[in-house]
Amino acid sequence: MKALRYENRELAVRDIPKPQTNDEALVRVTLSGICNTDLEIARGYAGFEGTIGHEFVGIIEELPRVSKAGTSAKASADDPPSLSVGLLTQGQRVVGEINAGCGRCSLCQVGDPRHCAKRTVLGIVGRDGAHAEFLKLPVANLIPVPNEIPDEYAVFTEPLAAACGILERVSIKADARAAVIGDGKLGLLCAQVLATTGASVTLFGKHDNKLRIAKRHGFETVLADNAKLQARQFDVVIEASGSPSGFNLGLDLLHPRGVLVLKSTFHGGTNIDAARIVVNEITVAGSRCGRFGAALDLLRTNAVDVDSLISEEFTLSDGVRALQRAAEPGLLKVLLRP
Amino acid sequence: MKALRYENRELAVRDIPKPQTNDEALVRVTLSGICNTDLEIARGYAGFEGTIGHEFVGIIEELPRVSKAGTSAKASADDPPSLSVGLLTQGQRVVGEINAGCGRCSLCQVGDPRHCAKRTVLGIVGRDGAHAEFLKLPVANLIPVPNEIPDEYAVFTEPLAAACGILERVSIKADARAAVIGDGKLGLLCAQVLATTGASVTLFGKHDNKLRIAKRHGFETVLADNAKLQARQFDVVIEASGSPSGFNLGLDLLHPRGVLVLKSTFHGGTNIDAARIVVNEITVAGSRCGRFGAALDLLRTNAVDVDSLISEEFTLSDGVRALQRAAEPGLLKVLLRP
Repeated sequence: MKALRYENRELAVRDIPKPQTNDEALVRVTLSGICNTDLEIARGYAGFEGTIGHEFVGIIEELPRVSKAGTSAKASADDPPSLSVGLLTQGQRVVGEINAGCGRCSLCQVGDPRHCAKRTVLGIVGRDGAHAEFLKLPVANLIPVPNEIPDEYAVFTEPLAAACGILERVSIKADARAAVIGDGKLGLLCAQVLATTGASVTLFGKHDNKLRIAKRHGFETVLADNAKLQARQFDVVIEASGSPSGFNLGLDLLHPRGVLVLKSTFHGGTNIDAARIVVNEITVAGSRCGRFGAALDLLRTNAVDVDSLISEEFTLSDGVRALQRAAEPGLLKVLLRP
Repeated sequence: MKALRYENRELAVRDIPKPQTNDEALVRVTLSGICNTDLEIARGYAGFEGTIGHEFVGIIEELPRVSKAGTSAKASADDPPSLSVGLLTQGQRVVGEINAGCGRCSLCQVGDPRHCAKRTVLGIVGRDGAHAEFLKLPVANLIPVPNEIPDEYAVFTEPLAAACGILERVSIKADARAAVIGDGKLGLLCAQVLATTGASVTLFGKHDNKLRIAKRHGFETVLADNAKLQARQFDVVIEASGSPSGFNLGLDLLHPRGVLVLKSTFHGGTNIDAARIVVNEITVAGSRCGRFGAALDLLRTNAVDVDSLISEEFTLSDGVRALQRAAEPGLLKVLLRP
């Protein structure tokens, strides 16, 4: 099968064997999305080698084999594939949570492998990813996609869940003044998720075309160069710019005892004046992955718009060019179709 | 009167006029304590000029004058001094909250001027401080000291309140594993306050003599060089080392979704890997001043020990030498007696 791989410091579409699955499900990818994390990996910043990509929608091609003893954990290549496991059946359209835990630690036992110390992460840590014709994931990671959601929207489930993760980390009151730093796809998703709480949302960005999208959604927009005029105005600020400068800008925008949520990861250090966090008693909350259920609900009810975030679509064979294109300023989501 | 002042980049004990008070109380300082913030100011790092010092215990010398209209706000120099205001009387022993707000903003109106944008801060921002024979503060800032607490302990009320401020910012469960980075006077106070919650407390430090004090209080102690062995072991970490390296060590010690409380302020930038905060979903909470009531309760009931934190006492006239001494490694609290 074809897969977009980063190995030996080189990004290329390669022909590799289809994943072997005994105790996991095999999924035929129908559409995948390029995330800034993919770009960081392709720059060699994340220490990952293999098939990249973690945003996808696909069809269950094979479920784990049923072992003669009746448990999939003991299944062998001689056992027949299952036709259904739990709510999942062969041929079903699914999205997949990207963290696969050890299944045994206390975090995994309560159903949240997102911080399992031994986790693999689809296309990010120790597990081949989604920019490929097929991928494998534990059955527990797969979630059926409601019929109302087309593939082009379902592929946003993972990044939208990441935006929803903000609300798992901080409680936002309906009368809060909220700001989002960054007008990229993550920032635009975060702004929409914040707005579902009733909070007023201001988006700080650098790109006219992206700020126009935010304006169409009813958000106040501010060019980052003018951000200082709004110093100490906000109760909560989401840093989604992917740039170290976003951290200090966030501290500028917050009033005392405000909350800065860090969403974007990027390579390298950030120089901060930690005394400002102390003197103004700021809370800084890191936020990574969110649960998919909340995101699928928002997509099913059209409570957020992802249509305007789709910039371009490429075939998987054209994956290298697609990644280059996704890195250009002004672009939003670039999709890959196997 | 004598006062220890930093002005024109020079620290000196000078003779200056006694503070003029119409609408504030005049307090005769009986004992003051040297804080690391004093050292930062005396190095020219904090932008403050005037009498330094903000930890004190003293005697009310004069209460605000009673105006003919009956409100102290309108008092003039012709009005007679009051003998009592609220629970305060002339001659009473008091400590004083160091933030004096505008009295009109929403924060001041609910009785918490600690983040008033127009606040002055005793010996730190726009207000002469406590290393002097007399100081003035608003009546609302003064709190009577229970008889059971000797001056030498009461002078710890402000830094102990700062340690108690941690519990205003984060809730700590009785089964929490807590760590304190820094074996200075602030770290040793923080460790004792944390222990009042029932949490187990480990103190990370660099000085054998200070770690011994912590050990006497029943805390586990670890030399900072060996800290990495305890990576990902703690639910909450208090950074009280006064060093930029404490921030990153705190991130090392916390398990995912742990809480790092920043207590110490210091001059200059800190280089952090912000991605670690995101990936491990750490919460970083700045904490500055706490309320005095909680601290006085702990002192009155002997729930914390401050006796072992007193290193030396100097006369106010010897203030410059006292500050030099307080900056030496191995020293804890140095007191000044006017």
